[in-house]
Amino acid sequence: MERTDAEAPGLLKPGRGRRRAEDVRHATLTAAAELLLAEGVHALTFSKVAARAGVSKMTLYKWWPSPGALAFDAYFNAFQATLAFPDTGDIKGDLTTQLHVFVDLLNRNGSVIAGIIGAAQGDPDLAEALSTHYVIQRRALAVERLTRAQQAGQIRAGVDLETIVDQLWGAVYHRLLLPAQPLTKEFIDQLIANLFQGVAPGSLDSTT
Amino acid sequence: MERTDAEAPGLLKPGRGRRRAEDVRHATLTAAAELLLAEGVHALTFSKVAARAGVSKMTLYKWWPSPGALAFDAYFNAFQATLAFPDTGDIKGDLTTQLHVFVDLLNRNGSVIAGIIGAAQGDPDLAEALSTHYVIQRRALAVERLTRAQQAGQIRAGVDLETIVDQLWGAVYHRLLLPAQPLTKEFIDQLIANLFQGVAPGSLDSTT
Repeated sequence: MERTDAEAPGLLKPGRGRRRAEDVRHATLTAAAELLLAEGVHALTFSKVAARAGVSKMTLYKWWPSPGALAFDAYFNAFQATLAFPDTGDIKGDLTTQLHVFVDLLNRNGSVIAGIIGAAQGDPDLAEALSTHYVIQRRALAVERLTRAQQAGQIRAGVDLETIVDQLWGAVYHRLLLPAQPLTKEFIDQLIANLFQGVAPGSLDSTT
Repeated sequence: MERTDAEAPGLLKPGRGRRRAEDVRHATLTAAAELLLAEGVHALTFSKVAARAGVSKMTLYKWWPSPGALAFDAYFNAFQATLAFPDTGDIKGDLTTQLHVFVDLLNRNGSVIAGIIGAAQGDPDLAEALSTHYVIQRRALAVERLTRAQQAGQIRAGVDLETIVDQLWGAVYHRLLLPAQPLTKEFIDQLIANLFQGVAPGSLDSTT
């Protein structure tokens, strides 16, 4: 996998013709994600990614404004499948499934993920990349699923769905970034129960 | 205010006798909080704090295990009054008051606070200090107020109060650290409404 000719014109493969843009993008994102998880966001440079992916550094400069932008694009890409929002038609079940997977991921790679988010604070370029290439896209996917649930009558009309994102995934990030209580599946179940049932007395005693 | 004799034996004041430990602690935390808000957590050293507070560096070494621990102690101390948890007997009103003040603070000093939390990721000493000297204490104060509300019958028996902390303050930190949506008072009101009413259909339509 690893190539030493980082500056080689990777788009031209002798005997195999020009690599398709899609293949180059895939190879780049895979290499970037591997480097990111192995060494953290500060270690990610265009040179290292180009060498590992076997593509030219010029291509990376053309496609991504900064290594930070590439990092979050790679991060988003790597976790998109794992963190997909299922739709079985049962919003509470689907949220439970997705958030259990998220907690599993954080219990494995939490310190790398916290390091990435931490590095983005106080680094405006990285913060911009985190927001554009990760946060906004992830929120949109969550809100999309919640919108279908609201249309299906499983979430009250009038409830602000963006706020639900902060009360589920934001609550989980809180335990990652300001640690004090454990990140467990029981915690996820409590998050969902509190939010759907409500914590006030007289709120639903038996939930669907 | 600023003193240049950083190494002077600050506990002995000619003509005024020994400064009381409480005064020294107060002067140190005030100086540390000022430096923290002005220059960020990385700029905070025992030397600078000692010079500004007019206390000996030895005293700081004796009382705080690291500059990070001092930073969070100062941070906690500085915001303890501002971020107090009021108790008028009405939990929803009191949470609204406290969280509106919190959002105001973040809209003024958010980038400094995000920088402190960001720096703690990937720095185990700072992370330990953040947890011990800030997060655990803040959570305990919040849970204390929520416990009284639960005893007063304003929160259902059986609801896990630690989880509520993540769904209110954690949700707010989420918008600070992974920015995409605004930190407004309307957001706070939605957080509280969602959590108390519940978002499921059939949950409380009219809240107390």
